[in-house]
Amino acid sequence: MTDRLYAAIDLGGTRTRSAAAHEPPRFERRDEFETPDGSRAVIEAMASSVRRVVADVRAIAAIGVSAPGPLDHRRGVVHEAPNIPGFENIPLAAELSTDLGRPVYLDRDTVMAAIGEALYGAARGIRDFVYVTISTGIGGAIVADGRIVRGASGTAGEVGHWPVDPDGPRCGCGANGCIEAIASGSGIARAYGTGGADDVFEAARGGDERAAAVLRRASRALGDLAVGLVNVLNPALIVAGGGVAIGQPDFVFGAMRDAVRDRAFAVPGRAVRIVPAALGDDSGLVGALAMARERASGKEPLS
Amino acid sequence: MTDRLYAAIDLGGTRTRSAAAHEPPRFERRDEFETPDGSRAVIEAMASSVRRVVADVRAIAAIGVSAPGPLDHRRGVVHEAPNIPGFENIPLAAELSTDLGRPVYLDRDTVMAAIGEALYGAARGIRDFVYVTISTGIGGAIVADGRIVRGASGTAGEVGHWPVDPDGPRCGCGANGCIEAIASGSGIARAYGTGGADDVFEAARGGDERAAAVLRRASRALGDLAVGLVNVLNPALIVAGGGVAIGQPDFVFGAMRDAVRDRAFAVPGRAVRIVPAALGDDSGLVGALAMARERASGKEPLS
Repeated sequence: MTDRLYAAIDLGGTRTRSAAAHEPPRFERRDEFETPDGSRAVIEAMASSVRRVVADVRAIAAIGVSAPGPLDHRRGVVHEAPNIPGFENIPLAAELSTDLGRPVYLDRDTVMAAIGEALYGAARGIRDFVYVTISTGIGGAIVADGRIVRGASGTAGEVGHWPVDPDGPRCGCGANGCIEAIASGSGIARAYGTGGADDVFEAARGGDERAAAVLRRASRALGDLAVGLVNVLNPALIVAGGGVAIGQPDFVFGAMRDAVRDRAFAVPGRAVRIVPAALGDDSGLVGALAMARERASGKEPLS
Repeated sequence: MTDRLYAAIDLGGTRTRSAAAHEPPRFERRDEFETPDGSRAVIEAMASSVRRVVADVRAIAAIGVSAPGPLDHRRGVVHEAPNIPGFENIPLAAELSTDLGRPVYLDRDTVMAAIGEALYGAARGIRDFVYVTISTGIGGAIVADGRIVRGASGTAGEVGHWPVDPDGPRCGCGANGCIEAIASGSGIARAYGTGGADDVFEAARGGDERAAAVLRRASRALGDLAVGLVNVLNPALIVAGGGVAIGQPDFVFGAMRDAVRDRAFAVPGRAVRIVPAALGDDSGLVGALAMARERASGKEPLS
């Protein structure tokens, strides 16, 4: 199978990336562009990007596409991409497949990242784990006994939306006190009243007590996330990726590990390791390549 | 198979019940006794109870035992039963099997209840659901795509120990602000300063504002539980059993349903129903009978 070529696209709210590979996780070529507005413009930009990473589109066996949810991975339809204007109920897999003349397989970004980490990253050989992204938002994907937990309508894994503070701030989802509202990059920035979470970390390092208080609250919420996942799901591993986890590892992993040591049940607390995504920013792209390869062979990874 | 006889025991902190059946969920005879102190006394009382529900122990094909966790369901060992003095690292299945001369299969009470509800109760034909018990404590079991989520060390399902309030009361598990500490029967009673949760419901009905405040907080925590389960696991069904759910259904189901309607994501919120355990107090006994029958045939239910 190593002579077959696969492509992957990781659709993001701000930037979209693509890659081609004969044998993931090694990319032969990669590309990146600013995500335009409007679904048609996005799909055309995705097709152009694929054309840039391969010499001949006809050589591609299949294309894997990672996109923000909620989406229908079986039908290849994005229900809603909150950060991409005009992206609602778009049959993304079918449209891109028409444009490129190749089979396209769609799945949620966090599911693709979990597949990437399971096959080539930190979760290799591990049957029970949770992938968590701590970035502008907080999301995830759950793998139980080697299989992705999809849920009744394919939305399982939204670990950032367990409410953890009755007096917590309003969340983008409409509820209040979600982990995402308190501990995501945007939640941290909003609580301090700045444009980005990096400002808050810098201010706290400079001795700003208000910034330190915002981070203490975020740290508590990340701890609640880790303790909750450990007690409720008993994973052998929590893999954390996303901008905040990559940029502030001492903060994120310190908060989660300390909380599990101090507050989780002893048996599952001892059973879990909490580690960074081994593929860093590329977990989703690698997972999408693996998904393309598996589905092209009639298989489905982690199912 | 309908001519084979099965027995089940549901070991509880206060009372233990047993039953015999050729064809669950119908019991032929049942028995109940006050749980004694000390593991040897408990096991002997369990064996006596089984002898009372069958004419001849030798006719039993297998015995299913439901017990509080944490426990090792493969090896049949109870690691710890916090409410039963002297019950620590007890090879319950092996000892009871020696006493009775019949095969014994052990599993956690909430897992047995989930099996009972899946095969004969509210969750028949449903592949993604969560069984929740709201009683002296709060626990549960998760079924994803038709299989029980066990986790890395068999403790998955402790849904009462997701922390939901940084200012919440100390929980029996040692952490603070767990759902169990706020919304279980013992948590409600403790917050009001009384012996039982029933007093608090009665006082609130009589216009006692302090009792009403305790119940508002418990209601919020039950809502957090339902919203969290819906967002993180996307179940088609949440089945709630246990003393508080059975005794105060308007309170428990009102709190959970209203919260999901008002605060959960739209797609998984529409996909879920929240209903009482159809087998009431007997979910665990029925599940243990089914477990005995399945394992005696070399099968394992929901796995």
